[in-house]
Amino acid sequence: MIGFNRNLDGLRLGGIRRYTTLAKEAGGCVMLTLGEPEFDTPLPIREAAKTALDQGCTHYTENRGTASLRQAIAEFEHLRRGLTYSSEEVIVTLGATEAIYIAMTGVLNPGDQVVIPTPAFGLYDTVARLCGAEPVAVDTAPTNFQLTAEALERALTSRTRLLVLNSPNNPTGIIYSRAHLEAIRNLIRDRELFVLCDDVYWGLSPCFTFTQFTDLKDRILAVQSFSKPYAMTGWRMGYLMAQEDAAKRLNVIHGHAVTCAPSMLQAACLAALECDPTPMAQAYKERRAYVCGRLDEMGLPYAAPEGAFYVFPSISHLAVGSEEFCTRLILEGKVATVPGTVFGREGFFRMSYCCSQVELTEGLDRLERFLSRR
Amino acid sequence: MIGFNRNLDGLRLGGIRRYTTLAKEAGGCVMLTLGEPEFDTPLPIREAAKTALDQGCTHYTENRGTASLRQAIAEFEHLRRGLTYSSEEVIVTLGATEAIYIAMTGVLNPGDQVVIPTPAFGLYDTVARLCGAEPVAVDTAPTNFQLTAEALERALTSRTRLLVLNSPNNPTGIIYSRAHLEAIRNLIRDRELFVLCDDVYWGLSPCFTFTQFTDLKDRILAVQSFSKPYAMTGWRMGYLMAQEDAAKRLNVIHGHAVTCAPSMLQAACLAALECDPTPMAQAYKERRAYVCGRLDEMGLPYAAPEGAFYVFPSISHLAVGSEEFCTRLILEGKVATVPGTVFGREGFFRMSYCCSQVELTEGLDRLERFLSRR
Repeated sequence: MIGFNRNLDGLRLGGIRRYTTLAKEAGGCVMLTLGEPEFDTPLPIREAAKTALDQGCTHYTENRGTASLRQAIAEFEHLRRGLTYSSEEVIVTLGATEAIYIAMTGVLNPGDQVVIPTPAFGLYDTVARLCGAEPVAVDTAPTNFQLTAEALERALTSRTRLLVLNSPNNPTGIIYSRAHLEAIRNLIRDRELFVLCDDVYWGLSPCFTFTQFTDLKDRILAVQSFSKPYAMTGWRMGYLMAQEDAAKRLNVIHGHAVTCAPSMLQAACLAALECDPTPMAQAYKERRAYVCGRLDEMGLPYAAPEGAFYVFPSISHLAVGSEEFCTRLILEGKVATVPGTVFGREGFFRMSYCCSQVELTEGLDRLERFLSRR
Repeated sequence: MIGFNRNLDGLRLGGIRRYTTLAKEAGGCVMLTLGEPEFDTPLPIREAAKTALDQGCTHYTENRGTASLRQAIAEFEHLRRGLTYSSEEVIVTLGATEAIYIAMTGVLNPGDQVVIPTPAFGLYDTVARLCGAEPVAVDTAPTNFQLTAEALERALTSRTRLLVLNSPNNPTGIIYSRAHLEAIRNLIRDRELFVLCDDVYWGLSPCFTFTQFTDLKDRILAVQSFSKPYAMTGWRMGYLMAQEDAAKRLNVIHGHAVTCAPSMLQAACLAALECDPTPMAQAYKERRAYVCGRLDEMGLPYAAPEGAFYVFPSISHLAVGSEEFCTRLILEGKVATVPGTVFGREGFFRMSYCCSQVELTEGLDRLERFLSRR
C-alpha cells in the first residue's frame, strides 16, 4: 500500500451529504438537509450563458477572471457595501468553496492555529487540517451563537494565524451584531492574523459585515458567492477579495489549482450582478417566520435566525445524541436534517428552509408527529 | 506584514502567460505561445450546454460528478484505451489542472521527491513545491526527449514518491515509445511510488500510454482533459481516474477545493464524448508537417514531434539564452514563443501550432526573417 498525504488521514467528505445520501437510500423523505435554493437560476442569467456560448466564449480567460467581471464585482461591492477593492484585488473562483480553499491554503503553515466559531460549516475545519494547521473551536452556543470578544480572546495564542467569521451564519442563521464585530476588531487589530470573512449569505440578508472594516483590509480575506442570492449553486461561481499583494499570492494557488473559472459562466455572472435577489430573499424571510412559528408550537427551542436559510433548534432536553436523532428522524419520521455534530456542536440539529413551501409544510408536519410520538 | 504559506515563496504564475502578456503589450505579434486551439468548441457541445441550462441543470451534482458522466467516461476509456476504471473510480475535475493539483496534493508529503522528465509543463514543478515536496528534474534532451529507464533509475531515491509522465509531451510533441515505457514499468513495479499520467494530448494523437499498464492500476493517477481534443479550454473540464481507494481520498480534496464541476458543463461533456476529434487532429497533423518543413529550410534543429501541437527547436548554436531569444523575437521579430527555461531547459524554445494556418505562415515567415537578420 502506497502512502497518501498524511493530512488526509481521518478526513472525509461533508456530513451534510452523508445524511442526504442516507435519506435518499431510505426513500420518501422530505429533504431539509442541503443549503441549496429550490429555485432554478433566473432566466436572464441562463440566457447570458447561452449567448456567451453562441459567441464562442469557450477559451481561456486571465487566471483571476476577465477584467470586465472583476471590474463589475469591484463596483458592485463598493456600491452595496462600501468596500474598496480594485479589480486587481478580485479573483473569480469556483464558488466560495475554492475561495475559502485558496485563502486558507495561501496563508496557513503547518502548526498554525485557525479559530473557528462553532457550530460552523465543516469546510473550515477540514481545509485547516489539510493545510496541517490546527482548528480551534470557540463554542458560541452559550452566547446565543454570537462570537464575543471575550470568548475569542481566550482562544487566541501566539500560533493563531487565521480567524473565520461567517455571518449571516451557517448553520444558525445568526447575524453577528455590529457591537460584537467592533469588539473583535479592537481585540485583533494589533495581532498578526488574517480574518477570513465568509459572507456568502449576505446577498439574501444584507447586514453589517466584518469585511466593511476597510481599515483592516490588509488582513481581511473576503469570500463571496453567486450560489445563494442567485440560485446558482451548480454553477460553482464565487470570488475572493484581498489586498493586492495577498491577491497576487493567492492567485498563484488559484491558477495552479484550476487555471481560471469557466469563461462562459464568467460572462453569465455579469448578468447575475444585475439581478435583484429581493424576491428570493423575501420568500426565505416568509418561510423563516413560518418555520419559527411551527417550532414554537412544537416547543423546540432555537436562537431566532435573522439570515441565511437555516434554523438550528436545540434537542438537549430530549436526552438523545443529534446523530441518533437525525438518523431516526430520517428512518422513522421521513424528514432529513443534519445533526449538530456535523457542525461541531452536539445537542442541536440543522434544518434548511430553502425548499418549497409545500415541502416545508410537510416536513414540519412530519417533524411534529415524530416528536409527539417520542 | 502578515506571513503567507512559506511554500508559496518564490512561486509565481506560469511563464507561458508572461510571454503572452509581453507580446500583447508589444503589440502586432503573431501569437505562437498558448496551447489553446484556435477553434471554438464544436456546436453540438455548446448546444448541449444550452439545453442543460434550459432544463434547469443549475444545481449541485455529486462531488465527484454525475453518475451518467462518470459512467460515460469509464466506457469511453475502456473502449478507446482498454482501461478498466469503473464509474466509482472517476472524478470529474476542473480541467486537467485540477486533476493534477489534487493528485499531487493527495499523495505528497513534505520532503517527498517528484521525478519530472524535463523539459516539462511548469505546473508539476510548482504544485510539487506547493506541497512542500522536492521536484527532481531528469533531463530528456540527450535521449531525444524520451525518458529512458537508465536516466530514471539514476534519479530514484528512497524519497521518490511520484513520477510524472506526459506523453504526447508538452513542450516537445514527443510520444514516449512503448519500449521505453515497458522498461520504466519494469524499473518501478516494485517501488512504492505513484505515477501521474498526464495524457491530455492523447485525444489528438492516440498512442500507447503508461496508463494502459492496467496491472499497475493501484499506483497510476490518470489525468485527462476535454480541453485539447474538443477545443474546450475555457470550459475547464477534465477528469482523474484512480483505483477506488485512491479515488475516494483524492475526492476529499476535490470536494473541499471546488465542491463539484459545474453541472451544466458536465451535461455538455456527455456530448463531447460523442464528438469525433479526428478533423481537428488532422488539421494539427498537417500544420505539424508544414512547421517541420519550414524549420528544416531555416536550418533550425528539432526533435520530430509526433503529437500535441508544439515543436521545441534548439537554439544552442545561436549563442543566446532562450529568454533573450524569445524577448527579442517578440520585440524585433513580432512573433511570440516561449523560452525553454519556462519548461526547465535552456537552449530551446517552444512554438505552438494550434493557431490558424494564416497566422502560422506569417509567424514562420517572420521567424525566418528574424533569424536571417542575425
